[in-house]
Amino acid sequence: MPWHPSYRGRVLEPDYLFASQHLVPHLLHALCAHLQAVARLEVARSPEAQAEIATLHRALEGLEATPLPAQGPDVPDAYFAIQRELEEALGAHAVSWVRIGLSRNDLDMTVYRMRARELLLGTGEQLLTLRRALAEKAGAHLETVLIAQTHHQPGQPTTVAHYLAAVEALLARDSERLLGAYGRLNRCPLGAAALAGSSFDLDRGLTASLLGFDGPVENTYDAVASSDWEAEVVSVAQSVALNLSRFVCDLLSWAGAGWYRLGEGLVQGSSIMPQKRNPVALEHARTRFSRALGAAGMVLYSSHNIPYADLNDFGPDVQGALQVQHVQLEGGIELLLACLEGGDFDTERLRAAAATTDTTATELADELVREGHLSFPEAHALVGRLVAKLQGEARPLAQATVRDVSELGGPELDPRALRAALDPDAFVRRRGGGGPAPHAMAEQLQRARRRAERDVAALEGRRQALSSAREDLRAP
Amino acid sequence: MPWHPSYRGRVLEPDYLFASQHLVPHLLHALCAHLQAVARLEVARSPEAQAEIATLHRALEGLEATPLPAQGPDVPDAYFAIQRELEEALGAHAVSWVRIGLSRNDLDMTVYRMRARELLLGTGEQLLTLRRALAEKAGAHLETVLIAQTHHQPGQPTTVAHYLAAVEALLARDSERLLGAYGRLNRCPLGAAALAGSSFDLDRGLTASLLGFDGPVENTYDAVASSDWEAEVVSVAQSVALNLSRFVCDLLSWAGAGWYRLGEGLVQGSSIMPQKRNPVALEHARTRFSRALGAAGMVLYSSHNIPYADLNDFGPDVQGALQVQHVQLEGGIELLLACLEGGDFDTERLRAAAATTDTTATELADELVREGHLSFPEAHALVGRLVAKLQGEARPLAQATVRDVSELGGPELDPRALRAALDPDAFVRRRGGGGPAPHAMAEQLQRARRRAERDVAALEGRRQALSSAREDLRAP
Amino acid sequence: MPWHPSYRGRVLEPDYLFASQHLVPHLLHALCAHLQAVARLEVARSPEAQAEIATLHRALEGLEATPLPAQGPDVPDAYFAIQRELEEALGAHAVSWVRIGLSRNDLDMTVYRMRARELLLGTGEQLLTLRRALAEKAGAHLETVLIAQTHHQPGQPTTVAHYLAAVEALLARDSERLLGAYGRLNRCPLGAAALAGSSFDLDRGLTASLLGFDGPVENTYDAVASSDWEAEVVSVAQSVALNLSRFVCDLLSWAGAGWYRLGEGLVQGSSIMPQKRNPVALEHARTRFSRALGAAGMVLYSSHNIPYADLNDFGPDVQGALQVQHVQLEGGIELLLACLEGGDFDTERLRAAAATTDTTATELADELVREGHLSFPEAHALVGRLVAKLQGEARPLAQATVRDVSELGGPELDPRALRAALDPDAFVRRRGGGGPAPHAMAEQLQRARRRAERDVAALEGRRQALSSAREDLRAP
Amino acid sequence: MPWHPSYRGRVLEPDYLFASQHLVPHLLHALCAHLQAVARLEVARSPEAQAEIATLHRALEGLEATPLPAQGPDVPDAYFAIQRELEEALGAHAVSWVRIGLSRNDLDMTVYRMRARELLLGTGEQLLTLRRALAEKAGAHLETVLIAQTHHQPGQPTTVAHYLAAVEALLARDSERLLGAYGRLNRCPLGAAALAGSSFDLDRGLTASLLGFDGPVENTYDAVASSDWEAEVVSVAQSVALNLSRFVCDLLSWAGAGWYRLGEGLVQGSSIMPQKRNPVALEHARTRFSRALGAAGMVLYSSHNIPYADLNDFGPDVQGALQVQHVQLEGGIELLLACLEGGDFDTERLRAAAATTDTTATELADELVREGHLSFPEAHALVGRLVAKLQGEARPLAQATVRDVSELGGPELDPRALRAALDPDAFVRRRGGGGPAPHAMAEQLQRARRRAERDVAALEGRRQALSSAREDLRAP
Repeated sequence: MPWHPSYRGRVLEPDYLFASQHLVPHLLHALCAHLQAVARLEVARSPEAQAEIATLHRALEGLEATPLPAQGPDVPDAYFAIQRELEEALGAHAVSWVRIGLSRNDLDMTVYRMRARELLLGTGEQLLTLRRALAEKAGAHLETVLIAQTHHQPGQPTTVAHYLAAVEALLARDSERLLGAYGRLNRCPLGAAALAGSSFDLDRGLTASLLGFDGPVENTYDAVASSDWEAEVVSVAQSVALNLSRFVCDLLSWAGAGWYRLGEGLVQGSSIMPQKRNPVALEHARTRFSRALGAAGMVLYSSHNIPYADLNDFGPDVQGALQVQHVQLEGGIELLLACLEGGDFDTERLRAAAATTDTTATELADELVREGHLSFPEAHALVGRLVAKLQGEARPLAQATVRDVSELGGPELDPRALRAALDPDAFVRRRGGGGPAPHAMAEQLQRARRRAERDVAALEGRRQALSSAREDLRAP
Repeated sequence: MPWHPSYRGRVLEPDYLFASQHLVPHLLHALCAHLQAVARLEVARSPEAQAEIATLHRALEGLEATPLPAQGPDVPDAYFAIQRELEEALGAHAVSWVRIGLSRNDLDMTVYRMRARELLLGTGEQLLTLRRALAEKAGAHLETVLIAQTHHQPGQPTTVAHYLAAVEALLARDSERLLGAYGRLNRCPLGAAALAGSSFDLDRGLTASLLGFDGPVENTYDAVASSDWEAEVVSVAQSVALNLSRFVCDLLSWAGAGWYRLGEGLVQGSSIMPQKRNPVALEHARTRFSRALGAAGMVLYSSHNIPYADLNDFGPDVQGALQVQHVQLEGGIELLLACLEGGDFDTERLRAAAATTDTTATELADELVREGHLSFPEAHALVGRLVAKLQGEARPLAQATVRDVSELGGPELDPRALRAALDPDAFVRRRGGGGPAPHAMAEQLQRARRRAERDVAALEGRRQALSSAREDLRAP
Repeated sequence: MPWHPSYRGRVLEPDYLFASQHLVPHLLHALCAHLQAVARLEVARSPEAQAEIATLHRALEGLEATPLPAQGPDVPDAYFAIQRELEEALGAHAVSWVRIGLSRNDLDMTVYRMRARELLLGTGEQLLTLRRALAEKAGAHLETVLIAQTHHQPGQPTTVAHYLAAVEALLARDSERLLGAYGRLNRCPLGAAALAGSSFDLDRGLTASLLGFDGPVENTYDAVASSDWEAEVVSVAQSVALNLSRFVCDLLSWAGAGWYRLGEGLVQGSSIMPQKRNPVALEHARTRFSRALGAAGMVLYSSHNIPYADLNDFGPDVQGALQVQHVQLEGGIELLLACLEGGDFDTERLRAAAATTDTTATELADELVREGHLSFPEAHALVGRLVAKLQGEARPLAQATVRDVSELGGPELDPRALRAALDPDAFVRRRGGGGPAPHAMAEQLQRARRRAERDVAALEGRRQALSSAREDLRAP
Repeated sequence: MPWHPSYRGRVLEPDYLFASQHLVPHLLHALCAHLQAVARLEVARSPEAQAEIATLHRALEGLEATPLPAQGPDVPDAYFAIQRELEEALGAHAVSWVRIGLSRNDLDMTVYRMRARELLLGTGEQLLTLRRALAEKAGAHLETVLIAQTHHQPGQPTTVAHYLAAVEALLARDSERLLGAYGRLNRCPLGAAALAGSSFDLDRGLTASLLGFDGPVENTYDAVASSDWEAEVVSVAQSVALNLSRFVCDLLSWAGAGWYRLGEGLVQGSSIMPQKRNPVALEHARTRFSRALGAAGMVLYSSHNIPYADLNDFGPDVQGALQVQHVQLEGGIELLLACLEGGDFDTERLRAAAATTDTTATELADELVREGHLSFPEAHALVGRLVAKLQGEARPLAQATVRDVSELGGPELDPRALRAALDPDAFVRRRGGGGPAPHAMAEQLQRARRRAERDVAALEGRRQALSSAREDLRAP
């Protein structure tokens, strides 16, 4: 009964290749864990059975070091390829123990969740590296004034630290989402068999524990048929990608304005324009986030309008899509990290730019409320007229005088107070409470660092749990 | 300075309409809370100021009972319409207090989050109603055998209870996701002003608390510029919609097979085919989930590749899209609930269907391992031959005899053991540990109910916190 | 048999409302056309029948002027509401003629296609208005030099005309796509009945013609079950939205740099920043394109993984989504048009900006090939060194001298040739063949205008065909 | 100036790998064509230049047979790798000719369009194979009655031929879309250089023709900056995938009901359920269409909200996404073809199924109109009562008698007329005009075959044009 060439070429072969590249160690571990549960069954109580099972366990472990054999003409998948290989070495009977109460359904779903854990941990760790890099660079720019643009226009002075800390806080919520997703998917399907469970009394808590899961997925139908964990994995990735698309958008603008400069290894010249120095690493980060966003659709469509027990759609056929999304997201973050580490803000240019905008207008209005006893709308209107008047005279707001203000009907301000109200540095210093004031900002960053440490510890705890389980699983 | 007719007709007017339908109460509350923080500032310490502020607070509350006035030609939005209305009643000075340290940026983002809380709570409560309905119907069908299909083919016997409990467990994870999303968005932007905070020392903890938030969004840039909470709201909705699309797919199949019957008010006839009785309520639920899935794209694209401080894209312009998705999801769940309450499984037909399939084959193989001392692959192969043989004789597997088994080289089984192995009810009873065995299933449902109660309490706690804050906010 | 309140509230009522707002005239026309085919049947050959049919036709037309009555408790949809209303006036027998050989399936699909034609024509005409506005503005800026940025860096001089003509050419292909989509959907489903056609010998060519279709959808199953035309409608809209998202991205950058200035009615101030003048109309155009892109998902998901004859998913339930996308796209284009008509390039600033970049470097390299007999890579390298040298001396490339070139090992250029090679205007004049050279550009624009006229004529032809059919359909 | 390891590892290396697998021949041809245009320039008029150019052309052709060398540490991409390789063989001067007036921008966009042509032609040809297979199978089932389901309920009798011809007609429109997309993208960017064109007078018509394009993209900015052709390529693929998702949905239902049977090489057993024979090839086709649908998002997001002249997003970075979508779509169609060729309808079961439904009810109502002189609503109501009555007596409608009808108040029908009205075969025979009547259907299929031949010829014409151009391009 040979497979149809199309089925073989379009399904079995690419799946086999993917399994050999990404899944085999997980598959072997899952088989070992299941075998331990079989070893505790009544049918396996004889010393002969125990010996066969121990031998099989060691043989499964031994396969970790060797590549999967070439796919034979009648072997559908890696699971059967492994059985076939072991049968040649140990005989069919010894190998048969692992088949008791096991279906490809629960086995595959276990393996896919193990793989998804790795993807999430990888993304989670990279995200932490990025958050720490942001906090570090923020710490170096506590007093670097940056004119924040809103609506593509100069808005108000803030600092590089304030901006970067905001991005870090945004990503900290993505770390939370990721850890939540990890917790929800880290449940073991084994023991669910095809979907109704097994009449063999398999210890599902044991297999779950041996594979580092927090426990079994209780309901066996749920265990093999639910694909919600995949939708959550891609949604978390979408969130990260969407958030970072906005950060990259600003970095590219700033690179264009000469406010942010990339090191040599991250820019590229033109084959035709001799003067060019393109910030290509940032551009390629942008596209990776776009593709990570789009790739989610492959996973979502695959689970849409299909029967609850159909597994192929979100099983073998969608693992490659998860991988594609992961590679894009990972690539984007890595490029962004390179641009943070191999680039920096040009504080000279930022300072020069700040001096030419009228972005302290808000503070002048605030000061007119406090010191000039105007209502805010009055102050806002007065400053609006002042800005217009000075622009007509080609003077920046920073050069406004006490007389300029009073001529427009405003109160007499103290010249030093006026000067201070128009100074971007003072603007920034006056805004604590979550704003850019350097002292408050330093404290905020301190809290951000502690939050990051807590998340690092959470991820390390997850990694550690996997290692410990791995040790417990080893054949005696 | 009149607005361009296109800007007015395409932006200002639809936004004003949306605000009047969905946002005004939130807007008034946010203004009241901000006013309380202004009342504690140095600039407002005079008795006159305190009196004006108290009057303004009461006037703001008074507006809750009246509709927003028609949009005047020079009024851009609801915020300015409210000011205008109050200025006519109280004079410009009294109203000006609310403008201190406030920007439409932090105000709008606060209002949008307050609205999103309502959407999430609404979805969350509906989801709980659905989970309870599933658990209840599951409890009524602990012993109703259902042939689970995998790959569009009869797979194994399980029970209606097992299936419905799996769906409930799946949705319980969506409840978790929703509560996580709620916690992350329930932070208050007020005090962030345009994005750099204010030089007025506004008590951000106070405003957050008066509006029922868990606290302020610490970093003020993050407070107004981040859109991650919207992406999370639509992702949670996508997860629910995707999961339910699979449940509806099965219900529609079962309705087609006569296994699930809908009441009269949920089916529709045909204008041309007299014999028709179409399960349209289920179909329309399906489409609502499809549209809820697709609607997420409107929100995701809107935040893609835009500067981090651009707010219009995910501010006024995307609230309608959140609403569209919410209406679809809510409609789908409500229709599904109606179909659960106004429909039921036809246990007679399910029983009849179970008798004609060969789906106890797995259990017979298991029994041959336990009692016949075959290895599982041997047993699997033997039962495979047995099924083929009987199909050739047009006999169902349920009628297999001891002799049928032995003729194919199998062991002599005890006739009663064979009978039991081929009985769908026994198949189900033998599968506890997360499987359909009624006794274990009843316990699983008990845990599911407790989990649902816990989630109900969590949602009620969230509702309660909003009510309490509402009380605290009222003018003395 | 009252409908379940959920079914009524979530399905029947919103559908009835949508039909009353958007579909009734199409529905009445489709019924009239079908009636004409019935009138030619054998069963209707008696004078009494002919009289009843003529009366019914006039009564249907009469309903166009009146709003749909409120939805009665037992009326599922507009089709039955219309019948009910007419039965009261004409008696049941007269109205029954329209039911012969008609199903809601073929009727609804006809109506939805008629509605989609309107959406496409509306978009198509707006697109043409935009293309003409682009060509007109291009014609006014044939010599306005614009420094084209690539990779967010100054690239090469071109002209505003060249840029805008490129956008126009891009949109011309969208017009083509739209006309292609129109042609494919402009086929009439009537006569398909439920899906198998009718045993009454209805003249499908007649009904198609009376409704302005190019002919019937030949295969009756295809006629009612295919949803490809909806996917094409939303894909065309996605193409337009995606293309315009890029144009708006540039306009916003240019507005930020002061290169493009919007009139007063298209900008908005800030409630807190007195100096602000935000190009909000452009921002809101951007978001509308984002939402139009995302809205496509609602339509695509709705047709995914559903049986080929299930119609609700892409029938009543998706018309609102088509409308949502259309409103977004239309709004975005209208805002963009307002920004083109109520805004312009600041040629002074563009000229000043051009003078400070080194973007004629390519032309200098080309000149070194032509006049200096270097190979292009040699010339490219030499100019690269020259730019670096001058930047070190804080001199723009435009001030390079013959001696600068020769000192770096380059050939002795004629001073006038050097000057010309470094002049942005000359750069532009030297690039015909699809490039910005004003003379060639004027010809290109001439061709663009003719192409636009051709497309206008195609759309007018489509409109005209609908009007003519409308005349033919009128009751004698 | 070594590249940053992240830039190298995440961008340059994967792009180089992709180019070596998919792009090199196109790249070499594009370089040869450009070289021919350079050869006609004034700067190349010397015999030495002509000789160098001829040598270079031959050397470029020679590279087609050899793999791209390993990527050196300072080589960014395939274009520079090829230059480097040739410089070693021919010297720098000879190779430099190809650099005149050429940018990676126009070169790459040309290459990507050449690649896209191949993808479209591949899909187009596969689609034609599928359409012909559908027409062929339809021809074999002109009289095979199939009960069409609507709303997941038995609707009306039709034939397998009618159904398959509908799918063919649906796909024929996709062929049209694909050919339209091909025509729009088959324009050559060469000569656009960076985007402003070149001051060298390159013959753009020549290069376009030598590469089999229908002509140059007129506007050079449009030539390199527009990404609409990619959006159209993925939209066409989405249309095909969406349409086929519905066809597969039915095939899977029919496989589940035993109406459609797959050959052995296309089904798979279960590792745990011995009785299983799963139609996996169909399932895997379904998932491929889901992924092709989702993959479009990668391409669409990449062009969203980016400057009009940014090319990386839809250039190198999105070619892999186009490939991913193509592989999924191609895989799905190939599997579907295998299922059509290696499977068939079970006419026995279809006939048996048709006999037990009440789906001729419509025809009976029609007959009561024609022969019984009832109005259609009266007839519809009467047949509705009749069906209900018979169901209460557990009798199928097919057994209704003249007396059954008259007892319910209906007219006396001729027994033969009643029999005919209830016969599924007669039902089908009475429905021509696009319906399933075998004679009319045979004619419809004849037209479908001619349409397919016309489309085959169109694709062959496209292929032929590419081959001819390839011949013209060869070095003398």
